[in-house]
Amino acid sequence: MDGSPAFNPALVALECADCGARCDLTRPRGTCPSCGRPLVAVYDLERVRAETPRDSLGRFGTDLWRYRAVLPFAPDFPVVRLGEGGTPLLPLARLGESVGVAELWMKEESGNPTQSFKARGLALAVNGALAFSREGIALPSAGNAGSAAAAYAAAAGLRCRVAVPDDTPEAFVVEARAFGAEVRLVPGTIAEAGRALAEWAAGPQWWNVATFKEPFRLEGKKTLGYEIAEQLAWRLPDVILYPTGGGTGLVGMHRAFREMAAMGWTSGPMPRLVAVQVNGCAPVVRAFDAGAPRVAPWEHAATVASGLRVPSPFADTLILAAVRESGGTAVAVAEEDMLDAMNDLAGTEGCLVCPEGAATLAALRQLRRSGEVRATDRALIYDTGSGLKYPEAWRLALARRASGEEVAR
Amino acid sequence: MDGSPAFNPALVALECADCGARCDLTRPRGTCPSCGRPLVAVYDLERVRAETPRDSLGRFGTDLWRYRAVLPFAPDFPVVRLGEGGTPLLPLARLGESVGVAELWMKEESGNPTQSFKARGLALAVNGALAFSREGIALPSAGNAGSAAAAYAAAAGLRCRVAVPDDTPEAFVVEARAFGAEVRLVPGTIAEAGRALAEWAAGPQWWNVATFKEPFRLEGKKTLGYEIAEQLAWRLPDVILYPTGGGTGLVGMHRAFREMAAMGWTSGPMPRLVAVQVNGCAPVVRAFDAGAPRVAPWEHAATVASGLRVPSPFADTLILAAVRESGGTAVAVAEEDMLDAMNDLAGTEGCLVCPEGAATLAALRQLRRSGEVRATDRALIYDTGSGLKYPEAWRLALARRASGEEVAR
Repeated sequence: MDGSPAFNPALVALECADCGARCDLTRPRGTCPSCGRPLVAVYDLERVRAETPRDSLGRFGTDLWRYRAVLPFAPDFPVVRLGEGGTPLLPLARLGESVGVAELWMKEESGNPTQSFKARGLALAVNGALAFSREGIALPSAGNAGSAAAAYAAAAGLRCRVAVPDDTPEAFVVEARAFGAEVRLVPGTIAEAGRALAEWAAGPQWWNVATFKEPFRLEGKKTLGYEIAEQLAWRLPDVILYPTGGGTGLVGMHRAFREMAAMGWTSGPMPRLVAVQVNGCAPVVRAFDAGAPRVAPWEHAATVASGLRVPSPFADTLILAAVRESGGTAVAVAEEDMLDAMNDLAGTEGCLVCPEGAATLAALRQLRRSGEVRATDRALIYDTGSGLKYPEAWRLALARRASGEEVAR
Repeated sequence: MDGSPAFNPALVALECADCGARCDLTRPRGTCPSCGRPLVAVYDLERVRAETPRDSLGRFGTDLWRYRAVLPFAPDFPVVRLGEGGTPLLPLARLGESVGVAELWMKEESGNPTQSFKARGLALAVNGALAFSREGIALPSAGNAGSAAAAYAAAAGLRCRVAVPDDTPEAFVVEARAFGAEVRLVPGTIAEAGRALAEWAAGPQWWNVATFKEPFRLEGKKTLGYEIAEQLAWRLPDVILYPTGGGTGLVGMHRAFREMAAMGWTSGPMPRLVAVQVNGCAPVVRAFDAGAPRVAPWEHAATVASGLRVPSPFADTLILAAVRESGGTAVAVAEEDMLDAMNDLAGTEGCLVCPEGAATLAALRQLRRSGEVRATDRALIYDTGSGLKYPEAWRLALARRASGEEVAR
């Protein structure tokens, strides 16, 4: 685009997902200048298709920059990188058999920098801040996003402010502070943290990298869809279960699948996308079940899965659209089932998952029982980060195992 | 080899590193049947060279099994895998400039399964246990090795017993137990843990996967050398600084560099290998400085870098040979310098390193000051695992930063 040498020449515009307004990248862009809703990147996919055949990706390395043909930055933009993406897709043969599906895969995201999937989005957002010549970033976080933001800010030489709920596990706070970020603990959920941040780190000097408040975290999460496709030899799974807080990954995969289909990189139907939440905070499930166009805020959100304690996701329309257009569903699981699934995944498959990840296995069992997932389905679940940052959840899970409360499968 | 269909046909023997005796793989092999010292795998490198050109590695994936042509298992052996290896090699431009070297790289191992470099060795050792038809594994550990062993044992359906020093950080113990391992806390260091294990988990029913007590952990660690070479386009660095407890990685890299040179995959001199230890436990440094052929046990070993608290590494002769043959050295750093290096790496480069990893940066500064590392050198340091498992060390490091004790560079 004119005047923006930092950006990918195939990136033609940022488009408002709600009102359709388009804007260019000649100045910093957060949300839609017309209506304030999320902006999404639009590429000239014909150009990408012509310039980057999918079998040429190998020359771009093994991390997420492998897909830089469909990422926002110019080929010669010196991106700050910590080795994000390129995570394993693990076949879970024994669990797949016990659940009763044709194939079961788990996308294991704990190997990312700062040990969670948040690295993908924040890597892109921090490089975006550099491309927009910003000097500081700020965000509210349930924990993992704050750590990732702080790490990339340190590597980029940017200042960083993070507001987190005051009951956020200590590991997240120590980590962000080790990276030199300023961390403020705020009573309440991520919603209250967001409100506190508005005053403490006001724009424009603090670039807001909260979920969907700038357009590039989505682009980073989009790479999940590309990686899954390539790791499965471009044959997408039938159903994907994704733990849904702010929903960036779900919306990102949806965009990736549409882009790949448009470029002819994949064929066949879009995977059914399942938004997984917990009984203690299930605003997306409630809206989906009611056929509502928007999400109403969840009162008294409570779960040890801190990443799912998002009472009112900003990109609600995009999340609901991704689930509905893909023929998927939204499902909430019981806290206890999630804890049991943590034990399952550690004891059977050797993965110390985070509770959010375990929720996707619990949801799969639930949908298999209801028949919404079939025995012939190729299913994919997610571990979005390392269980090491959730000592409290693991204490609860191990106590259930020791007490025999764990439900035998 | 005859009668061993589980093994790589190019694996010609196991050879004693000390007495030179050779044995085959028709039965389980731990240490040398003649003298009890470590066994190392010997390959027909002419055959590997002919069958697997280095530019064909891409078809074997991006994790460490990419190098399976020089690993012990047959192409059709169904290896248990969790996504080990394939970790980033990060360029540290700003730190490199501040230290004063031509190039500075960090091999970032925290993205491995169970978040440490131990995954490489234990992945191979557990698959070795399967290939040898063992039903349980056992080892003493300072923490990370126990977690990795427990994870692979869970994935493989094997039992696992781990003995650890009783002051091992809690995260390690919780993690190993989550994987279903039996963990015993033993007063003292890893040396005492090893002695306790001999009775609690006696062979042959418990396959001993302690450092160098079976031949395959070394093969897993060897892949560090292959990855570094490939990531640097087969142009090896001048000097590599490695935190040395049991020494498997150091010896493994040394073997990898010799194998690659023999196959013509690399040319030029072998990188100088530097064994990095801490003042509180430096048996290798003491032996190196004295020109001794063996290491004498270190009394009263003490450091927060639990992986370096190895008073008497079993493979001492191999470690000293790797350092000497490569023209390297051995160096001990002060505990405080290690803590400051943790802050450096987090604050400047966005990496929450473990103390063992930080020790390699402290050692690099020390050798740069002494002139043993030159301004023209391309240097490589290591982060061997995530700092998340070391809350105590991070508390100390952040306290130094807050108090201003940290030494300004």
